[in-house]
Amino acid sequence: MIKAFLLIPVLFLLGAAAGGAKPPSAASPSYADLLAGSTASDWRALDPENTLYVELPAGRVIIELNPAFAPAHVQNIKALAREKYWDGLAIVRVQDNYVVQWADPNSENPAKKRKITGAKPTLAAEFQRRSGPDVTFTELPDKDTYAARTGFANGFAVAKDVKGQTLWPVHCYGAVGAGRDNSPDSGGGTELYAVIGHSPRHLDRNVTLVGRVVQGIELFSSLPRGTGKMGFFATPAQNITLKSVRLAADLPAKERTELETLRTDTPLFKKLIEARRNRVEEWFLYKAGKLEVCNMPVAVRAKASAP
Amino acid sequence: MIKAFLLIPVLFLLGAAAGGAKPPSAASPSYADLLAGSTASDWRALDPENTLYVELPAGRVIIELNPAFAPAHVQNIKALAREKYWDGLAIVRVQDNYVVQWADPNSENPAKKRKITGAKPTLAAEFQRRSGPDVTFTELPDKDTYAARTGFANGFAVAKDVKGQTLWPVHCYGAVGAGRDNSPDSGGGTELYAVIGHSPRHLDRNVTLVGRVVQGIELFSSLPRGTGKMGFFATPAQNITLKSVRLAADLPAKERTELETLRTDTPLFKKLIEARRNRVEEWFLYKAGKLEVCNMPVAVRAKASAP
Repeated sequence: MIKAFLLIPVLFLLGAAAGGAKPPSAASPSYADLLAGSTASDWRALDPENTLYVELPAGRVIIELNPAFAPAHVQNIKALAREKYWDGLAIVRVQDNYVVQWADPNSENPAKKRKITGAKPTLAAEFQRRSGPDVTFTELPDKDTYAARTGFANGFAVAKDVKGQTLWPVHCYGAVGAGRDNSPDSGGGTELYAVIGHSPRHLDRNVTLVGRVVQGIELFSSLPRGTGKMGFFATPAQNITLKSVRLAADLPAKERTELETLRTDTPLFKKLIEARRNRVEEWFLYKAGKLEVCNMPVAVRAKASAP
Repeated sequence: MIKAFLLIPVLFLLGAAAGGAKPPSAASPSYADLLAGSTASDWRALDPENTLYVELPAGRVIIELNPAFAPAHVQNIKALAREKYWDGLAIVRVQDNYVVQWADPNSENPAKKRKITGAKPTLAAEFQRRSGPDVTFTELPDKDTYAARTGFANGFAVAKDVKGQTLWPVHCYGAVGAGRDNSPDSGGGTELYAVIGHSPRHLDRNVTLVGRVVQGIELFSSLPRGTGKMGFFATPAQNITLKSVRLAADLPAKERTELETLRTDTPLFKKLIEARRNRVEEWFLYKAGKLEVCNMPVAVRAKASAP
């Protein structure tokens, strides 16, 4: 038999509830049950103005941008997409258990490097922000190694300082950030990376995080690893060319991938957090009773059709 | 320029120390400096009797088994390797941000399933063990979401209960475990998995962890993802055949990959932990001052030649 060590078929759960010995928390709904019972108001459509399509030879990777936390970077990334800055540039780095990074392979060559026409080459850092009415924080109850408080705001995994006045997005799997040199204002979005390994939380507050991958991360994470230093490809021939990077808003409706994502400011999301802290599925003999921020998914699905 | 957002070339560090403005902790050596200054006694050779070679079409993945924590499972895995149980079986599951799993694709078919000749099909769980003189625990100073205490023992990332009497290996990137069905004694090692994503710590104490990948994890993590339920491959044709799984001890010396790994019970390892808690490289503007157990690597290198 195939030993299934995470998800238990619904049949098992029904069986346990109907006749078998009930597990201790059989009364609590599972994560899957809760999600299946969600209503339209538990979801929000991705805003086409803040949705980026990275078109690779293997398909489309979709990134939700985070203007509430990195407004200048998001604006600049949109400008870069609109001037087609990345078209024909490439993924130049795939470091195992770390990041995929895309950039201009000729960035060191003034004659050949891609010209920036309207956007800015660099920006001041946006590592963190003040709390405000435009962000709704849903807090996780458990300790975190790196931050006083963690949770979700506007769909993104974030941390908070002990006083709750400062917030910053955290480096979970799929987080997208703006590479920089040693100076804090040496980024800006021309070179972006996505996390494809265990969450490198030591990068928190060291890089401007600009968004998260909401679909297609496997097109990044299954790429061959770079064998050069820090996972850069050893030869330019190994680079993976970006066909294009576009804002969803700039594509005709029929070329868009219409997605919606779970709101993180709802009673349902809090119940989902509890379902992940204490998994009711029969397979789990030991209930962790805890949840680390990067182990909490924010579900994404195809947009429900209009009635 | 290529924005390098993690490792800073040694040149930068030297420059800062020699003439530039010194960063606050310039006196502290970096992780790379510490590793470069290691001596032979900081390392231990992998024991060929507890080293497993998983031979894939793309190359060799090397697993260090953990007999101090899972003695019966390790013994059984060695017996399975010696009866060539896995030869011609396959990787049947690659779930993004989770696991790669190998098994008998015909396990549900009594007529076609691989026969077990000497090993045991299942074993009692070995989820945790008592503290004892055969394990040396090096504790991390920072909080962990899931466990009262975390650290390293015998080269493996482990957790401890608050009284320090019970220890268990934790699910970091590269951890290898024995899949099971709902019963705790339904594993045994015939189906194994390796973690290829953010550490799924909710699996701790739910599965017998038998070892860790010490080389070649990228041959697992860069595989195409399965598109079936839970990341299983949708069709048998997508399975990735295992050429063989062998103990290093059973191969002629010239066919072995001679590796050594850093000891985790040394003063050097404690210094390396500090270097990861507070990174001295100039690039890090914000020093985390913390370290989560799955963000601490245990270095592996080619075995130094005899003098």
